[in-house]
Amino acid sequence: MRDFLPADKAHRERLLAIIRESYRAHGFDEIETPVAEDSDRLHAGLGGDNEKLAFGIQRRGLTRDDMQAAGEPLDLVDLGLRFDLTVPLARFYASHRAELPPVFRSIQLAPVWRAERPQKGRYRQFVQCDIDVIGEPTNRAEAELLVATLDTVDRLGLTGAFVRVNDRRLLIGMLETFGFPVAEHEQALITIDKLDKVGQDGVVEELRERGLEGAAVDALDAFFRRPQTMEFLTFGERAIRKALPEGADDAVVAELAEIGAAVMRARGADPQAVLLQFDPFLVRGMGYYTGPIFEHAHPDVPYSLGGGGRYDGMIGRFLGTDVPATGFSLGFERLVDLLQRAPGSEDRAIALLHDADVALGDLLSLKSVLVAQGARVRLLVRPKNVKPALDALAADGFTHFAFVTADAVAPDALELRPLG
Amino acid sequence: MRDFLPADKAHRERLLAIIRESYRAHGFDEIETPVAEDSDRLHAGLGGDNEKLAFGIQRRGLTRDDMQAAGEPLDLVDLGLRFDLTVPLARFYASHRAELPPVFRSIQLAPVWRAERPQKGRYRQFVQCDIDVIGEPTNRAEAELLVATLDTVDRLGLTGAFVRVNDRRLLIGMLETFGFPVAEHEQALITIDKLDKVGQDGVVEELRERGLEGAAVDALDAFFRRPQTMEFLTFGERAIRKALPEGADDAVVAELAEIGAAVMRARGADPQAVLLQFDPFLVRGMGYYTGPIFEHAHPDVPYSLGGGGRYDGMIGRFLGTDVPATGFSLGFERLVDLLQRAPGSEDRAIALLHDADVALGDLLSLKSVLVAQGARVRLLVRPKNVKPALDALAADGFTHFAFVTADAVAPDALELRPLG
Repeated sequence: MRDFLPADKAHRERLLAIIRESYRAHGFDEIETPVAEDSDRLHAGLGGDNEKLAFGIQRRGLTRDDMQAAGEPLDLVDLGLRFDLTVPLARFYASHRAELPPVFRSIQLAPVWRAERPQKGRYRQFVQCDIDVIGEPTNRAEAELLVATLDTVDRLGLTGAFVRVNDRRLLIGMLETFGFPVAEHEQALITIDKLDKVGQDGVVEELRERGLEGAAVDALDAFFRRPQTMEFLTFGERAIRKALPEGADDAVVAELAEIGAAVMRARGADPQAVLLQFDPFLVRGMGYYTGPIFEHAHPDVPYSLGGGGRYDGMIGRFLGTDVPATGFSLGFERLVDLLQRAPGSEDRAIALLHDADVALGDLLSLKSVLVAQGARVRLLVRPKNVKPALDALAADGFTHFAFVTADAVAPDALELRPLG
Repeated sequence: MRDFLPADKAHRERLLAIIRESYRAHGFDEIETPVAEDSDRLHAGLGGDNEKLAFGIQRRGLTRDDMQAAGEPLDLVDLGLRFDLTVPLARFYASHRAELPPVFRSIQLAPVWRAERPQKGRYRQFVQCDIDVIGEPTNRAEAELLVATLDTVDRLGLTGAFVRVNDRRLLIGMLETFGFPVAEHEQALITIDKLDKVGQDGVVEELRERGLEGAAVDALDAFFRRPQTMEFLTFGERAIRKALPEGADDAVVAELAEIGAAVMRARGADPQAVLLQFDPFLVRGMGYYTGPIFEHAHPDVPYSLGGGGRYDGMIGRFLGTDVPATGFSLGFERLVDLLQRAPGSEDRAIALLHDADVALGDLLSLKSVLVAQGARVRLLVRPKNVKPALDALAADGFTHFAFVTADAVAPDALELRPLG
């Protein structure tokens, strides 16, 4: 878990404000849930491997010594820090459904926690930016999510990002076509998910080592080796079908192509622009996806910037009814790292270097006049050596400075000079 | 702990944005610390009674069953959720002092957690808005804090708020004047802190019951009963001295009066306005205060809206050196409750009630055109009964609506009608 110093915090808040405003413009509504959920709910099987990473919280807020001293049982870990924003959303929707519109588009910009070993680019507290459409069974949900996400990433100033798209139903259909028995689907998907890391030969090798149906692995291998003329650019029915083995579900392909065409048109995209890329081997780790799935990628970085998909079975788990749902999560920490800090976002930030003997009322009055004029104002006692102080102020984003002495403290007497 | 639905969340984010911008304008810089701190640090004696209310966290993120299965000791509660923003600030400053300006003005707008029984207006997760000036030994710090706070509360639209002011040194001086021995000071302050609740007679009675020095209690009683002509309005030296027993420290009174005069002038306040009120019996609970102390009050509510003061000994605790510090904390939840939600903050929020058969590309393209024009746009399938849907949209802050049919979906064809 990290501290954020002023420059980093300002950068983060600036990006969050852009994301918030953009998603709101696209008709999504921000909600907030508590950081802690009941332990039972966090371990209900909706979080996959992340469930193991939930920090446990003692509801009673006692240390072990306190608990022993009070004769309390030690198993009071009945809360946990959320490891994602999807489990809380499902609980929130179940609690508040009657107060929400029939199709509910949520924004959640909030931290989550995972008790894993910290590594470069991974933290134990990090912010996720999730949007979800709940209650919309048609592909309008996917199209809205994708347009909103692409527009938001645009507004952040990140160019060149694109979205890899697949559909869980096409994936399963492909496994069936190759001849994998249903019992082997889960393992096959886990292995295919490693394609980016181990390559086609690595996938085939692992499937053989794990003893999956030989004829099916052969069929996959042959499909890998076919001559490919992928037509990613148009993301049309023809291109999708060519990237899949024979026998793919026409309706699913048409639905996906319709999303692609709508997104391209809504974004006013150059037909040559690669906004969406069909990837027949995109898996996405979580088991709860049921339809179209997405992964947000950028040519400059080897990892995904976010992702999501349709998960129709999950929201209803706490309600006992089926509720269609689709979501897209942007990995905020990766965006923060990828996007340059905005240089000097302040229009007018003024440092007043004052002598120590300036009367307090004069000084505060001068500051207030400048603040009322829309400036950001920092006071500091004029140091003996002015140069390093001015450099530090410029680095902190200050644009102007002025010296203030006891005999020239009226706003009219102020001589502002540009900094840096 | 509470969920926030869209209208509440929008209200909260709007207030936070105003507070953030106002404090930044006054030269403060926002920082962020992780929600969890080491358990030892949370229980180092800096948090008073709140230390008992820290939720314990298992660093390893295991349930008791997991721990037993893994043969782990059960005393892994070595983290805790922060119960205030002051302990984390002290730890942050000790870690990052070299990267911060000599006088560091921090903003923290963040949740804290206390494992207490929920009651009206008190929650187990709530947001605090703290500003602190670290490294400034003079009363410039107090004056800046007060001006920034009063301006911020103004910008929030809360009128009539004022700040009660006292000084720990004057309090101690008063106890000495009355003749309380040093060993009785702590108990005397705890009892005097109840003045608002139990009244003057209640305070005197409790002090007698607890067996404090009889002559000193008599002196306090006599002081309570003196004829009073408080001159709060000017907050000048004369008024402060009149509110105190003979023998008050002239230098402290002058320092306090100087703060008051500077704040009044910087705020351009009508001399009749009650911005500051000297209260010789204001105590503030925390033991770490060493100089001027404040409490933010409003005539409409019986509780304080925030408070703070100088706490010179504390920040240095993690550094081993003395570091002067003054802080002011606004109670965000109380401000949220007190301030009306802004009616329809959106300039242009458009609901598109479309037929189900409108082509996806047409629909998303239309939406994108409106979003690009600066509108907030929500899609919904036109229901059979339109009236309740329109009422719900108006309640959600939407300002316009339009019907969209498959044969009239071009932006030019759109007939926007005002809502509500």
